[in-house]
Amino acid sequence: MRNYKMLIAYDGTRYQGWQRQVNTELTIQGIIEKAISEQIGYNVEIDGSGRTDGGVHAVGQVANVKLSGKVDEKEFQRKLNETLPEDIRIRQMELVKNGFHSRLSARSKRYEYVIDQRDKPDVFTRKYCYHYTKPLDVAEMRKAVAYLIGTHDFGGFTDKNDEKSTVRTIYDIKIHAENDRIYFSYYGNGFMYHMVRILTGTLLEVGNGEREAESILKIMKSKTRADAGFLAPALGLCLKEVIYK
Amino acid sequence: MRNYKMLIAYDGTRYQGWQRQVNTELTIQGIIEKAISEQIGYNVEIDGSGRTDGGVHAVGQVANVKLSGKVDEKEFQRKLNETLPEDIRIRQMELVKNGFHSRLSARSKRYEYVIDQRDKPDVFTRKYCYHYTKPLDVAEMRKAVAYLIGTHDFGGFTDKNDEKSTVRTIYDIKIHAENDRIYFSYYGNGFMYHMVRILTGTLLEVGNGEREAESILKIMKSKTRADAGFLAPALGLCLKEVIYK
Repeated sequence: MRNYKMLIAYDGTRYQGWQRQVNTELTIQGIIEKAISEQIGYNVEIDGSGRTDGGVHAVGQVANVKLSGKVDEKEFQRKLNETLPEDIRIRQMELVKNGFHSRLSARSKRYEYVIDQRDKPDVFTRKYCYHYTKPLDVAEMRKAVAYLIGTHDFGGFTDKNDEKSTVRTIYDIKIHAENDRIYFSYYGNGFMYHMVRILTGTLLEVGNGEREAESILKIMKSKTRADAGFLAPALGLCLKEVIYK
Repeated sequence: MRNYKMLIAYDGTRYQGWQRQVNTELTIQGIIEKAISEQIGYNVEIDGSGRTDGGVHAVGQVANVKLSGKVDEKEFQRKLNETLPEDIRIRQMELVKNGFHSRLSARSKRYEYVIDQRDKPDVFTRKYCYHYTKPLDVAEMRKAVAYLIGTHDFGGFTDKNDEKSTVRTIYDIKIHAENDRIYFSYYGNGFMYHMVRILTGTLLEVGNGEREAESILKIMKSKTRADAGFLAPALGLCLKEVIYK
């Protein structure tokens, strides 16, 4: 068995997310597995670093696949890219140790959420930004960020109820405003289902004055989803990088 | 009569170009005229700074429209943007002197042509770059550029035969390579039908070694389209800026 690590970019607009599903062909995982299986001549499964929701994009998703024999990575990647639709691209492919697992070996991840504040979204990036025109107070949002950074129980910031532990570490959240856009960069050891989008929705509510920065403390304490903010739409989110040891 | 100048951005992908046509509704001019006419209650025509071809994009197209009375520019722009499809955006609207004409008053223009040299185009910009994988010698292309800059008869670099004069001035052509992309920035007093795309096709042929940089001199002399390079596809081209006095 040879274990190959792939670095993957996709425009998630027309997909129902990363994870293969029985009743739809429109998942990134399903489409990549099919492309690899057709090329290699037998069925394979791939492991992603995590599941991105329907409509979420990636420039740095990572997945690994175990093949029965050695392949020329460059050539294999080139052929795969020829078969894959134009909104999914294998950026890199490399042979790694058998022990490498895209999800289990991941140490941390970076996500970016982009807001477009113009009267009407930019025509070229309209599918990759959330159009949100309410005025935002960046300083207030940064105050809220200070409460989020660190190791906390983020049970109130997920829509999934069956996590073994809802404790995660957020190393950093950067908020950067430029040209009518606001960029939220999240860096942490792991993010639960909907977590980045709920964090963003909560920060937006702080930014527009609907809630106080200090309300973060209440959500941390209650661990109740209803105390947190709205679920920011998928289209503004992008998985930027998965970091391994 | 009040004369309004509009700064317009569009993703040209699904359009047959700027210019209104009888048999199609899919022109930028036609769609904007319809949106303004509906809002103002009578039919108007707009004058663009120039016609972009089908599939060509713009971040800085300029058009002007004469309305019978005064309107609140901000409010008018906002309503227009609400009606216009998401791939056309009015970036700015302002009252100008009656003598202002988007095309006749224009002094110069900037265009950008973008090449994506990756094995497979970037998933987010695939509709805004020309995918061209042949290796390119930037230094050779810059040699060719030196022959193009200045006031010359560019009769060989257009697909239109009824221009009064085919003399134009190119102030500058910058070639910039970054992250597997090559950017061609054109700055000149005016560009004829297909001119930027033919210039780009010719430069690409110089870059990949199919022709010599000096062949530019031959095209200038013969003024024959067949001596110039291929017509680079529309999708890589964007009208960046129209400059007025």
